Formats: sequence, C-alpha cells, structure tokens
Amino acid sequence: MKKIFALCLIGAQIFAQKAPKNVIFLIGDGMGVSQIYAGLTANRGHLNLERIKVIGFHKNQASNNYITDSAAGATAFATGKQTYNGAIGLDSLKVPSTTLLELAEKKGLATGLVSTCDITDATPSSFIAHQRTRSMHEEIAGDFLKTDIDVVIGGGRKYFEKRKDGLNLLDSLRKKGYQVHSDLTLDGVNKGKIVALYAEENPIKVMEGRGDALLYSAKKSLEILGQNKKGFFVMIEGSQIDWGGHANDTDYIVTEMVDFDKSIGYALDFAAKNKETLVVITADHETGGFALMGGNMKTGEVKGAFTTKGHTGQMIPVFAFGPGSEAFAGIYNNYDIFTKIKQALQLGQK
Amino acid sequence: MKKIFALCLIGAQIFAQKAPKNVIFLIGDGMGVSQIYAGLTANRGHLNLERIKVIGFHKNQASNNYITDSAAGATAFATGKQTYNGAIGLDSLKVPSTTLLELAEKKGLATGLVSTCDITDATPSSFIAHQRTRSMHEEIAGDFLKTDIDVVIGGGRKYFEKRKDGLNLLDSLRKKGYQVHSDLTLDGVNKGKIVALYAEENPIKVMEGRGDALLYSAKKSLEILGQNKKGFFVMIEGSQIDWGGHANDTDYIVTEMVDFDKSIGYALDFAAKNKETLVVITADHETGGFALMGGNMKTGEVKGAFTTKGHTGQMIPVFAFGPGSEAFAGIYNNYDIFTKIKQALQLGQK
Repeated sequence: MKKIFALCLIGAQIFAQKAPKNVIFLIGDGMGVSQIYAGLTANRGHLNLERIKVIGFHKNQASNNYITDSAAGATAFATGKQTYNGAIGLDSLKVPSTTLLELAEKKGLATGLVSTCDITDATPSSFIAHQRTRSMHEEIAGDFLKTDIDVVIGGGRKYFEKRKDGLNLLDSLRKKGYQVHSDLTLDGVNKGKIVALYAEENPIKVMEGRGDALLYSAKKSLEILGQNKKGFFVMIEGSQIDWGGHANDTDYIVTEMVDFDKSIGYALDFAAKNKETLVVITADHETGGFALMGGNMKTGEVKGAFTTKGHTGQMIPVFAFGPGSEAFAGIYNNYDIFTKIKQALQLGQK
Repeated sequence: MKKIFALCLIGAQIFAQKAPKNVIFLIGDGMGVSQIYAGLTANRGHLNLERIKVIGFHKNQASNNYITDSAAGATAFATGKQTYNGAIGLDSLKVPSTTLLELAEKKGLATGLVSTCDITDATPSSFIAHQRTRSMHEEIAGDFLKTDIDVVIGGGRKYFEKRKDGLNLLDSLRKKGYQVHSDLTLDGVNKGKIVALYAEENPIKVMEGRGDALLYSAKKSLEILGQNKKGFFVMIEGSQIDWGGHANDTDYIVTEMVDFDKSIGYALDFAAKNKETLVVITADHETGGFALMGGNMKTGEVKGAFTTKGHTGQMIPVFAFGPGSEAFAGIYNNYDIFTKIKQALQLGQK
C-alpha cells in the first residue's frame, strides 16, 4: 500500500510539474488588496480574480528604498534583480540584466507588451529596455528596435515619431517588417508582427471613454502570439489603477480595476481552453494607502480614503492559474517571480 | 499511460484529502495585510507566517453593514452564518447557531479558547456563547458553564466573580471539575480541565510587559488538548493587534503582531511534528486603514499612517498548513471558513 502511495505521489508530481508553453503575465499597477476589493465591490460582489485558487504574496522593497516605484518593481519581475527606483532593466549597479522577454525571444517564443499607458512607461519598458532612468522615454523607445518583439500595443506614439533626434522609429519598425498602427482598428490584423500605438501620449481613462481598449488589446495579442508553436510570453498591464491611487480618486481606481479584471477573465478563459498556459496576475506595489471605509455589494457603491498621494510598502498578492501555478503559493520576493516564470517556461536552458 | 496517470491522481487525491484530527485556529484581530507586513518589517524581514504555502482571502461583510465588527466576524467563522454587528453566536434573525466548538465537543474532541483580551470579548465568546450583543459580558461568562470546554486562558476574570447577580462562576467552574487559576503559573498543570483568567479585565499590552503570556497560553493549551485521542479544536487569538489599529499606534500594532507570530510559529512546529493537525490563521477584519509609509528591514523601523480609528472592509488573508489546508486556497466568504473547518474535522457527522 505504501508503495502504491509513493508511486501515485510521484505520478501526481510529474503531472503537476508539467511545464506551460505560454505565460500571460498581467500587472495591475498600484493594485493592492484594497484596490482589488474596491473593484470587487464596485462590480457588485464578484471579479474574475475569484476564479483563481493559487495565491501568494510578494515583498517588493527596492534596493535603495523600502517603497518601490514601478521601474524597480517591474525590473525585479523582468530580470530577477532587486534594483533602485527608476531603473529600467538595470541592476542596482546600473548593469543591464537580461529580461524574461529577451530570454523568451532567445528560445523562439513569441513575445508581446500591452498597456494602457505610454508603452515606454516604467512597467512595460522594464521588460524590453535597459536605461538608467524611467524618464528616458526616447532612449527606451529606441530599445524596442533592438528586439524581435512581436506585439506592442499601448500609448506613447510621440516617443517613436516626434523625437528630439528627428528619427521616425515607426518607419524603422516598418522596415523591420512590423505592421504599424496608430489606432485600435486591428480586426483585419490576424498575424505577423504588429505595433499599435493608439495614443500620442498616455491613453485616456475608462471614465473618459477608453471603452474596452485594454480587453481588445489583450485579445489581439493572444490571437497573434498564440499562433507560435513554440509558445509565447506576454505582459499585459492595467496601468491606470495606479494613477487612480496617485489622484486619491476612488472612482478612477474602481473603473480601472474592473476594466483590468475583464482582461484577467479573458486570459483565464484562454488558459482554461488552451491548457498549456500559465497566467500570473499581480501588482508592482500599492498606491495611495487606499482603505475601504464603506461600500455596498448590491449597489456597487465604494467609499475610499487614502494616507498618501504616493506608494506604500505592503506586500502584494499574486494570483496564478494553469500549469506551473503552484510555484506562486506562499510569500516571496518580487524578484523571485522572474525565477518562477523562467523555470515554468524553461528559459535560459539549452 | 493515461490509466496510470488517472490512478496516480486518484491516489494523490486520497492522500491530499486525509482528514486532520486537530484544528488550531489562530485569529489575529484586526490583522490586515499591512499589519502583517508591518510585523514582518519590525521583525527585520521575516515572520513564521512565511512558512505557509496555502493562502486565501475572505470577504467579511456583516449582514447589516459593509464593515464587520469582531462579533459578526467571529460568529461567521464559528457558526457559518453571516450576521449583524454585535451578535455573539446568533444568526441575523437572532437565533442561536451551533458553533464549531460545540460541534467539536459533541464529537468528543477536546476544545479550548485562548486570548489576550477578556475571554468574554467578541472573538472568543462567539465560539462558545449565544447572546444578542457583545457587551453582555456577564451573560457570556454564564454561557461558559453550559459547555464542556477543556481549556480557557485569557483575561476578564471579573465577569466570572464580581458580578451584578452576586454569583461566583469560578466556584461553579471548580464544582464542574475545572482547575481554576488567576495567573499564568501553570507549569504544574499538565492535564485535566483548566480555566486560567490571568487578568481582572483585559491583559496588558506587550509594550507594558505582557511578555510571552500568549505563547505560554498557546503552548499550555496544546499540551493539554493534545492528550485527547479523538483530537481537539482550539481558537487562539492575538487580540490586541486590533487595539493598536483603533489607537492608530504603529508600535502597538507591530509589537502585538510579532507577539502573535510567536504562537503561529509554535502552532506550525506542533503541526509539523504531529502531522494530523490543520492550522488556520486569519483575521476578522482590518483595523485603522493602516498603510506602510516607510520602513527598514534591517533596523526594523516601521512608519505607519491611518485612515480611521475604526475598521475597514477589505478582504483578509487566510493562511493554512497541514492536512486539509488546500481547502483554504482562493477567495471565499468568512462564513465559509466554518464549513471548511467542519468538513476537515468531519464534525456534525455520525
């Protein structure tokens, strides 16, 4: 009987350790526990996040500050290094560090970055660029040319075509074979490499009429990346939850949170059907010291209060779904997420 | 090959579903994510909580309020019913509802309640008493006589011996066979039933010199309850994390949090050795709208800020360890914890 148990356990472990082919990494910028719960309340008691069983927490201190910014936070995810606030793909000694996206490309995976902010902003750029500080948008845009990323959808077009150096990087991208779009009318784009920068600077808020731009971008990225037989890595960011926190604006937070959750739902549907996709959802940090002072699950009313216009240092929940998800249980450092995704996709191995 | 996998999966499930004999339910009153992380920071970067892999979240709205109090919160855990703020072991229609502790007694398990507040306060009393409102301390004390609880350690002696009705319930407890103590010198007490009410009212703070009273109480309770061959159920509360939040006092929060974590560590050691013990750790609600504005993992410094002197409505993490722990993954209602513990201990079944 003991032998049967032992055999079964080994079998179960082999089954559990089946490696995913694809990773969808969803980052809700500034999305702490209260932001999630505010969204759940505003959405009348439910979120797609509730479909997930595996939950962990990450510690997210920067190398030079207890409170991280989005650059150090995303660089930790992308490179596995604890670094200084402002760093884009550099370690604490300002040395470039290979990112998950770069490792995925090297292995022949399709790759993508999707956001609702400038695509050169701290979170997306930390996966593809290596620059001393996050404000170097034009240099960061230049780094997009150095990679073979397949799908880029977000804002920040001006950093590619209205530059101090006079270069038009959108032309350079076209020459490299990209389909370049300045809007989100991408229904006819079903394969190949694509850059869609649908706003000159940051895209507008959901409250101002952004509609389902993020969900549409997420769907399009999975449609295209999913065609690669070797698999894919994509980072999809709900960028403006953070800005709702900075503005101490509860309505801004909850509308962006509920919007982000739609893409979470789509990613979970994709993974449930595909069966070879790991979905990881987290935030870089909490923004606003946001607290739920009251609410109503039936009407969706949420009353919030804040302690700061900046970030706070609390640990941040991580939700994981699909093959390899069990590695994301427990409490660990933000930079361990790099290692967990790298191991799940067996990146950096011959 | 498929058949072998199927067999192995069934075997693994049987293994995973092995029922625990004992449950240690640890409640950190008012312990939201920021309180935990403040404690981790003050403790220079680590907590015993980090030893746990299975993490969930509970939603904790009261039946009559988005923000729960400790009575409705603990009654939800204890009885599986969403109820009104102030209710002790009653449902929302004020009907008494059987508690986990009562079900455990019925099945022949040893039972215990341990706290660092009045043992008649909302959290412990919701597991043993049935009263309209939490302020009815003397009536709640009377309810302790109606049960066969084995170990009671906490404060609130006056509600047993200095009562308006002139009764001395400590004498009544002695007559029922309890060893009654008014302090925590319990080294010689190694078996039997025990009531140790080591403070007239609420025990003092850790900062005022409470020392390891909670850890000592937790150890003593497990030493005695662990002798029951049928198993045990004990609720151990870190009561004053909540009061640190109400006082908007960061030092108060972190000292009580680190103190509570010592009992968590002891419970995990016990469970790791015993192998038949499920440990569940959570809070009833968050208190203070507490945020981490700064800190230092090396020095243990923590800078906090608050949005309220009351409670907030955010979801609360649940940590589980040992056989049956996997049921506590995901997001669910606070009252589902009753069902999960009931099923783990197979209570209410013939």
